[in-house]
Amino acid sequence: MRIDVRKAAELLLDHDNIIILVHSNPDGDTLGCGFSLLRALRQLGKKAEVALPRSVGKKYGYLYEDLGHQDFEPEYVVSVDVADVKLLDEDIKEKYEGKINLAIDHHPSNCVECEYLLLEDTAAAACEILYKVINELGAEVDKKIADCLYTGISTDTGCFRYSNTSAQTYRFAADLVEKGADGAYINRIMFDTKTKSYVILERLVMDTLEMHFGGRCAMTYLTTDMYEKSGSDETEAEPLASKTRQIEGVDIGIFLKEKDDGTFKISLRTLEPIDASAICKMLGGGGHARAAGCQSEGPLESVKEKIISKVSEYLNQ
Amino acid sequence: MRIDVRKAAELLLDHDNIIILVHSNPDGDTLGCGFSLLRALRQLGKKAEVALPRSVGKKYGYLYEDLGHQDFEPEYVVSVDVADVKLLDEDIKEKYEGKINLAIDHHPSNCVECEYLLLEDTAAAACEILYKVINELGAEVDKKIADCLYTGISTDTGCFRYSNTSAQTYRFAADLVEKGADGAYINRIMFDTKTKSYVILERLVMDTLEMHFGGRCAMTYLTTDMYEKSGSDETEAEPLASKTRQIEGVDIGIFLKEKDDGTFKISLRTLEPIDASAICKMLGGGGHARAAGCQSEGPLESVKEKIISKVSEYLNQ
Repeated sequence: MRIDVRKAAELLLDHDNIIILVHSNPDGDTLGCGFSLLRALRQLGKKAEVALPRSVGKKYGYLYEDLGHQDFEPEYVVSVDVADVKLLDEDIKEKYEGKINLAIDHHPSNCVECEYLLLEDTAAAACEILYKVINELGAEVDKKIADCLYTGISTDTGCFRYSNTSAQTYRFAADLVEKGADGAYINRIMFDTKTKSYVILERLVMDTLEMHFGGRCAMTYLTTDMYEKSGSDETEAEPLASKTRQIEGVDIGIFLKEKDDGTFKISLRTLEPIDASAICKMLGGGGHARAAGCQSEGPLESVKEKIISKVSEYLNQ
Repeated sequence: MRIDVRKAAELLLDHDNIIILVHSNPDGDTLGCGFSLLRALRQLGKKAEVALPRSVGKKYGYLYEDLGHQDFEPEYVVSVDVADVKLLDEDIKEKYEGKINLAIDHHPSNCVECEYLLLEDTAAAACEILYKVINELGAEVDKKIADCLYTGISTDTGCFRYSNTSAQTYRFAADLVEKGADGAYINRIMFDTKTKSYVILERLVMDTLEMHFGGRCAMTYLTTDMYEKSGSDETEAEPLASKTRQIEGVDIGIFLKEKDDGTFKISLRTLEPIDASAICKMLGGGGHARAAGCQSEGPLESVKEKIISKVSEYLNQ
């Protein structure tokens, strides 16, 4: 049953011993929702916990490290920023699937089976909805709650860069920094901090840049020896796939990443109308229209030839 | 004479044939100020022009390309976001030094000789002040003016990332997107698009990275030969100043940029509590607490020694 902010607040006020579910590989928005709601509920004298997934990035520590644990038998289950129960950690899904009382979300595709659904798909971040809910609950938006909500708003808009950023987004950010959110700190941690080893790795990878098809296709590669040279490892390689696509005029960015067994992961990032997924499918891979991947045996030169010939085939279709 | 927004608007309403000065190597804030003011004045039936410096980045074209030229003998001279007449292009400085009627700025170090000064040093961007002035003038903030003002606000805050971003900054951004500013487009152009020549230039500059003071200070440099090697020019060098400060653990980022005459522009970017402006003042420069600059004669090695010794002096205070 679809409900509004006021009804969601009423339901929360009417219940206690509340367990809050966030999605796996949690990002700033789902964690910001979870811990702002937990803090608001505890402020109102209720017991509340977030069911924390296994892998939470260290950088999110400031959202919850000051909080103590509360022991209770969950009586009310609330999911935040979870579009689908498949996006919960397996053990959490097993425990709570079919038992969610209230789902608060901003994904138009939300398909969580729940008693009540508060869905605002024009909100850039689910934290925008939580800000309204917490105000409606009558809890004070203190510095910690403001930090949580600001984190969700900033991370889900790419620091106010994506087209989902609305006037409401900026107005809520204004309120939250007035209430003590440390935007500069949060954005520095989320968007503006690179390890020295990453900086060196990026340099090594960008040194391999080559352009094809009159400048519309850019390719870089990473070989395993670069990890040692830079003092980095594979966990730091993720942002490199999107670097080539940022080059002006490039609508096909290719990133080749050598793995320990000498095979290569090929990642494609494209701009409209290039279908990255269609190109990767030719090599047995897949993905989304703007971001897709596939695998290939080495050596490097033959991987390069293979993907360039498939791009050529796609462009000539 | 220090004046407020209302008095500045009165002065502008009382005059016509207004020439607007912006600083050399113009950034989004000075250009956003210049062209929003020009548009507001023309809307009110006045003649107005921006004295455009020699090198303006192509990406700023949308701020002014739709505007026609107006021929008139300047009767009133207004500088925007210009902290010092030394920051004007040489020919513009020669023509207007000592003749500036109104200076509108947000740099605490402003030392422009002028009849009237509207200085709000808590504004993250001079465009925040211009927004107030334009409202006070009674001009309509149309889509084009909103784009200009948003550009200044977004670029001077690093897309709402720096600690200068205040509640007012977000509130003005909210107003401006409501009035039609295309934040997503502007931020993609300003922060998420790199020319191929820039990518190569960045690589050459990052190759010069050196660390000092146990990793808390990182320094890179750009020499003029790198422009030729990369196919770029000085207009592309601006974002490089902040790259070193992004490295984890670095609270003092230094960027040395050689100029055509062999002298160097030194740019500092710092984290709290390091006062970049205090360090740059030791070398005759100035700026903000987290971003400041100064000049030095070459050669490169002596510039490096000079700035490192001043940083050392500052840290030992």
